[in-house]
Amino acid sequence: MTTKNWKDLVAEKRERQLSQIPKEWIIENLPPKETLNVVDFPEKCGLLTEKEVEITNTGVDVLLENLASSIWSAVEVTTAFSKRAVIAHQLVNCLTEIFIDRALRRAAELDKYLKSTGKVLGPLHGLPISLKDHIPIKGIEMTMGYASWVGRYSDKNSAIVDVLEACGAVLFVRTNLPQAIMWAETFNHVFGRTLNPFNRSLTPGGSSGGEGALIALKGSPLGVASDIGASVRIPAVFNGLYGLRPSYGRVPYAGCINALEGQEAITFVLGPISDSLEGVKRFMKSVVNHNPWIMDPKVIKKPWNEDEYRLVGHGAGQRLCFAILWHDEIVLPHPPITRALEHTKQALLAAGHHVVDWKPLKHLEISNVVYKILSAGAKEDFLKVTSSSLEPIISTMDPSVDYETSVPSDLPPSRMMVDGVSAYEFWQAQKQRSNLRQEYWDHWNATVSMTGTGRPVDAIISPCAPYVAPPHGLNRNINYTVICNSHDYTALVLPTGLTVDPILDAPKPSHKFFSMMDRANYELYEPAKFKDAPIGIQIIGRTLEEEAVIAMGEIVDSAIKAKTKPPTANL
Amino acid sequence: MTTKNWKDLVAEKRERQLSQIPKEWIIENLPPKETLNVVDFPEKCGLLTEKEVEITNTGVDVLLENLASSIWSAVEVTTAFSKRAVIAHQLVNCLTEIFIDRALRRAAELDKYLKSTGKVLGPLHGLPISLKDHIPIKGIEMTMGYASWVGRYSDKNSAIVDVLEACGAVLFVRTNLPQAIMWAETFNHVFGRTLNPFNRSLTPGGSSGGEGALIALKGSPLGVASDIGASVRIPAVFNGLYGLRPSYGRVPYAGCINALEGQEAITFVLGPISDSLEGVKRFMKSVVNHNPWIMDPKVIKKPWNEDEYRLVGHGAGQRLCFAILWHDEIVLPHPPITRALEHTKQALLAAGHHVVDWKPLKHLEISNVVYKILSAGAKEDFLKVTSSSLEPIISTMDPSVDYETSVPSDLPPSRMMVDGVSAYEFWQAQKQRSNLRQEYWDHWNATVSMTGTGRPVDAIISPCAPYVAPPHGLNRNINYTVICNSHDYTALVLPTGLTVDPILDAPKPSHKFFSMMDRANYELYEPAKFKDAPIGIQIIGRTLEEEAVIAMGEIVDSAIKAKTKPPTANL
Repeated sequence: MTTKNWKDLVAEKRERQLSQIPKEWIIENLPPKETLNVVDFPEKCGLLTEKEVEITNTGVDVLLENLASSIWSAVEVTTAFSKRAVIAHQLVNCLTEIFIDRALRRAAELDKYLKSTGKVLGPLHGLPISLKDHIPIKGIEMTMGYASWVGRYSDKNSAIVDVLEACGAVLFVRTNLPQAIMWAETFNHVFGRTLNPFNRSLTPGGSSGGEGALIALKGSPLGVASDIGASVRIPAVFNGLYGLRPSYGRVPYAGCINALEGQEAITFVLGPISDSLEGVKRFMKSVVNHNPWIMDPKVIKKPWNEDEYRLVGHGAGQRLCFAILWHDEIVLPHPPITRALEHTKQALLAAGHHVVDWKPLKHLEISNVVYKILSAGAKEDFLKVTSSSLEPIISTMDPSVDYETSVPSDLPPSRMMVDGVSAYEFWQAQKQRSNLRQEYWDHWNATVSMTGTGRPVDAIISPCAPYVAPPHGLNRNINYTVICNSHDYTALVLPTGLTVDPILDAPKPSHKFFSMMDRANYELYEPAKFKDAPIGIQIIGRTLEEEAVIAMGEIVDSAIKAKTKPPTANL
Repeated sequence: MTTKNWKDLVAEKRERQLSQIPKEWIIENLPPKETLNVVDFPEKCGLLTEKEVEITNTGVDVLLENLASSIWSAVEVTTAFSKRAVIAHQLVNCLTEIFIDRALRRAAELDKYLKSTGKVLGPLHGLPISLKDHIPIKGIEMTMGYASWVGRYSDKNSAIVDVLEACGAVLFVRTNLPQAIMWAETFNHVFGRTLNPFNRSLTPGGSSGGEGALIALKGSPLGVASDIGASVRIPAVFNGLYGLRPSYGRVPYAGCINALEGQEAITFVLGPISDSLEGVKRFMKSVVNHNPWIMDPKVIKKPWNEDEYRLVGHGAGQRLCFAILWHDEIVLPHPPITRALEHTKQALLAAGHHVVDWKPLKHLEISNVVYKILSAGAKEDFLKVTSSSLEPIISTMDPSVDYETSVPSDLPPSRMMVDGVSAYEFWQAQKQRSNLRQEYWDHWNATVSMTGTGRPVDAIISPCAPYVAPPHGLNRNINYTVICNSHDYTALVLPTGLTVDPILDAPKPSHKFFSMMDRANYELYEPAKFKDAPIGIQIIGRTLEEEAVIAMGEIVDSAIKAKTKPPTANL
């Protein structure tokens, strides 16, 4: 692409990014670095009008209603979210490309369309949607966190962009991600590090950390993230949001750019992050009903299935049997996670569902084989891209390492930077993964004997990580999520409404450790470190069960909300 | 598995195979080698009773009706097909495992079940089904054409075996295939070479050549074959039969054994071969309605879709637009193929459909990338298996090479026996294939402007190979079929009822050759070489369009049959 040095490219790009921000939206009175929780700042900073606060605090369903009935214009809604996104960016550094002019032109067209036809353009008419920075939009620069790719403008839309725009969405910003996307935190040389708005000393997770942080600050009502190991779910959970990892072949991925291209065993899937489950559902329903298989041959021809959403095949949702994965026999989760699972269990029992324990099966083997697959040719892939600008390949998310000054020579390489293997060895890893997937499928089928429903377990409820958002540099464990990528399970994450509580979540006495990782995780924990961090859970359904998993998510979400209310509120 | 030498293993296995054939079914008066066409022999040899001839000459639909109404018992039907299969085997060497005792016990159970309950066990009640020799059945030996695997007994059923048995089928024989399955002819050291029953100097094709030859001789009404490049379709077409290459993820493949395990880009799919389209349809409908996704996580949850079968989405089949691929810009087909395409075109026009020309797009690139993918680790895979018995890896299907006496040292290695590549290079091949697939999809979508139906082309009609069944050793071109494996298109092949005619199919003057391959193919042709060879065509639909492709196949089949009848018959 280029032969410039990476530092020059970064400087050039940062200047260009700054120029995309309307000057009048630049905030002078930003909170000092020491202010960790900045969630309330956008509403209080004075930049947003009262109406803009109201609009940006509104969930996707009501937003769409108000847009459709012209209570709010698309221009108003786009302006409000754009302003709030820019505020968010100044707090937690979550944006990459900012194209508000384009968005406002588009919003004005939508307003005109509605006015002249009396109809909405599509099911997402006027809804601002943010996108992770590897989803091309024609004419817009896309670096994917690589300095080497500064100056690379997309010559066509990705399929999802075409679908969303045909559904009436207004795309307005793209969001930050780690270099090469292959980390569960969010830092790259071009845009720097994204912070967690609940506690800026913590990571927002990754790789869709920009989406997580932005949406938590209500700078976007709905974001398109992507997941190859954790990347929709960890940022959703670490930021108190809802997120879905759909199965392969449900949401069109055609035209997206990513690392490890051509590695087709464990691939990225696009999935939504939103602050409401309705947002997740609207995204999925709109996309799969737009016949995305016409534009992307890898998409399965399966429109939204209302029967499956009504849980036909799961006893119509009347008495579901959930299984809780308390731990994966690799790392015991921290006390807040276990408390949230127990809370969920009690809520589900109170709502009349069955709850059993889930027995994990070879989770460490699964995780190891996924790394074997992903790293089989990764080093060559990374080197090929970075060589043009000599940008350092990131080998740690530790914020004490400052790549812009000097990279310590003794940094151990990341787990992805191992020597490549032969195609034959790669096939053996793929074979092992397929065998493990079949074994787990059989294991799941066999639970029919213990559920009391006549069906196997309807869904697994699991941690999303063995901790809430940890301090920057310490999110190194994707074992609780990566099983869904390996085995192609549909996985929804949701917030429990709980946050870390120093008393309820006091450290537990030491246990017999499963592993060194388990010991390190145990030793990491002290409640004060994780102040204000939201606690979420993961609901795992089977392959291509998007409708059912969303419906079960609604059941779990309602049960938790009912339990969390003061008891009298239920009478 | 073993440390015995391959010749000892082969001798041991051949003896065991012979012991599986009832002595009284061994025929003394076999036709001499010089008798090329042996299609009529089974009925005339005197071994079959009149009723057995009637049963084995009956199509799948009537067979199933007569079984369900107890006109014929399952034991009678199984006996008839078993005898005819054994006759066929003595003519063309098509069987591997012969387990008639097991089949007859099973048939007796089915008869008992029907008698006592008044109901059929399932939609394939009592139907004998043959299987290609890489589909495990518990307790039955499976060599897959490898001497090294002699003595390897399967410890469990493959998923398809469970499904078929649950549907009421009677499995009775397995059929021959080439060593490692990766050839489009049928020869291995263990069982030798399978011949084409229409002309034994010709190949039956492969890799499912045993199925093709067996079913052409009516030794089985329905066979389970498999396709990774041509392997259902070429044997079906070369033997005058119907065959379907379903999309990935439609028919359960779990538990099957094959070469190149772990290579998951271009994989085997199981598909039916039958002497009627009804047989193909019954197989697909029975299998996909048995919820195969419960046992195999790679199967898409899609039961038989009657709307799609009724061609909703294709104008209800009223005025379809077919596109004919006359040649692939690599090799011009021989005159009989072009005549069959022209015949089909006229038949479809007469039936009121549109017919346009199909413009091929990068077929040579597609074929090359498939070979890159398949050969990336193939050599290591083959060497690993064959090393235990020192069996020679087959490098040609040329019958003049006799591996049992001495292998010429100067044989060039096959296209699969190249040095392996790195995982990174393999990824680049996979990426190239995905890009080509997307490009072809867009190309297909763009035909909407030329069909006059408001839809893109409904299906492509194409040669299955640039020739009818060629002499042994000369079937080296899978370009006309492999595109469907690369791009995951549903493909049905069907006979046109035509055979090579020395006058109508006289050689054409030389043309400007596309390639060396094209010249060699041109020079190969003289009608007498291909005496009695059936001519078939291929109908290509899009991914996961099994129902629609079968329905369009019925339309094409009827149109051809209507045209082929004497004109008065239509009045």
